[in-house]
Amino acid sequence: MKYRAYVFDVYGTLFDVYSISEKCTYYFGDKGISISQSWRQKQLEYCFLRQIIGTYIPFHEITKNALQYVCTVEQVYITEEIITDLLQAYHYLSLFTEVKQALEMLQSETLVVFSNGSVDMLLPLLNNSGLTSYFHYIVSVDEIKQYKPSPLAYQHVCNRLNMQPKEILFLSSNTWDIVGASQFGFQTAWINREKATMDLLGVTPNYMVNNLQELIVQQK
Amino acid sequence: MKYRAYVFDVYGTLFDVYSISEKCTYYFGDKGISISQSWRQKQLEYCFLRQIIGTYIPFHEITKNALQYVCTVEQVYITEEIITDLLQAYHYLSLFTEVKQALEMLQSETLVVFSNGSVDMLLPLLNNSGLTSYFHYIVSVDEIKQYKPSPLAYQHVCNRLNMQPKEILFLSSNTWDIVGASQFGFQTAWINREKATMDLLGVTPNYMVNNLQELIVQQK
Repeated sequence: MKYRAYVFDVYGTLFDVYSISEKCTYYFGDKGISISQSWRQKQLEYCFLRQIIGTYIPFHEITKNALQYVCTVEQVYITEEIITDLLQAYHYLSLFTEVKQALEMLQSETLVVFSNGSVDMLLPLLNNSGLTSYFHYIVSVDEIKQYKPSPLAYQHVCNRLNMQPKEILFLSSNTWDIVGASQFGFQTAWINREKATMDLLGVTPNYMVNNLQELIVQQK
Repeated sequence: MKYRAYVFDVYGTLFDVYSISEKCTYYFGDKGISISQSWRQKQLEYCFLRQIIGTYIPFHEITKNALQYVCTVEQVYITEEIITDLLQAYHYLSLFTEVKQALEMLQSETLVVFSNGSVDMLLPLLNNSGLTSYFHYIVSVDEIKQYKPSPLAYQHVCNRLNMQPKEILFLSSNTWDIVGASQFGFQTAWINREKATMDLLGVTPNYMVNNLQELIVQQK
């Protein structure tokens, strides 16, 4: 293969963050799906704003704040127990269907996860899904307290791996992550399962594929 | 009055960005209102992401890119002429009803506008609405190419005015702007016309009011 490492984003790329909507529907009924969507959107927005303003807090706290905000706006009843249970669901997100087979096809390569999530969220999630053993490195922005898509975050992966950006293929389903990583100098693959539209932020990824397996076939 | 300067955000604070929805409805029919909302949301997101990634381009270009993206997603037909006409509508946004009277009540104070907008957007907008003469300073982030809510942007206002953050009252309807400005050290007033919910980003403004006039009454 032509890259020294394959670096995977986690939320939205390996795992479906909207698989949490089932639990949201259990607690919030008809509002469950829209709450799960607003929750994710607010979670990202809070990462971005805290990165700009310079007030980092870990991803699990941001995730909690985003949920609390959305529940206030949606005027739904929520207790500390419900919050704890919903946050716990982040440890049991569903894998996208092709992920395990794709990682098996790449098992002779150096595989890395790199996430805005803190390790207290990442490790249980990877363990519960049986994914831990596939990866040689688990890298969190929490180690330097700079959220993606800051160049400081992507630099941290290079430092951990002791590699140059161009030696790395970065894979993500999140367009903002692909833009940040491409701008930084990574080779990039946009895993576009939803047939979404690339954001107009002046950057295009090296690969655009419908799923991980399609990428591997292109690489061979 | 107790502040050396009153610094006003522009879009959403003095002017209603959603007044553009009328023109969107003219071009896009039933999709007009939702396009105007997505357009604003994407415009903000592109400012935030470019600030984090470090790829500044002026606000009018971001505004154009955001419109193009939304039209692609919504699958509506658009030409260069329509884009030009819609961007032109940003020079003719509606003032919120109480703005002029509020500025008149403050006319013995030092009044400032401070916006993510570039001056090629700000000057026509202020002129067309008859607001220019109320303001002693027109400050754009374009002068330093750092978008709000970066602390570098708020510092630029202090530099232009030669004032300390605590001497300034900053007024905005945008919660992310209030959070950034409060964190930086400005005194802040959140003009919350829509009875929105404050974001959970660890900061509360000094004042929360329903409109500008309510703030002035509180100040007297």
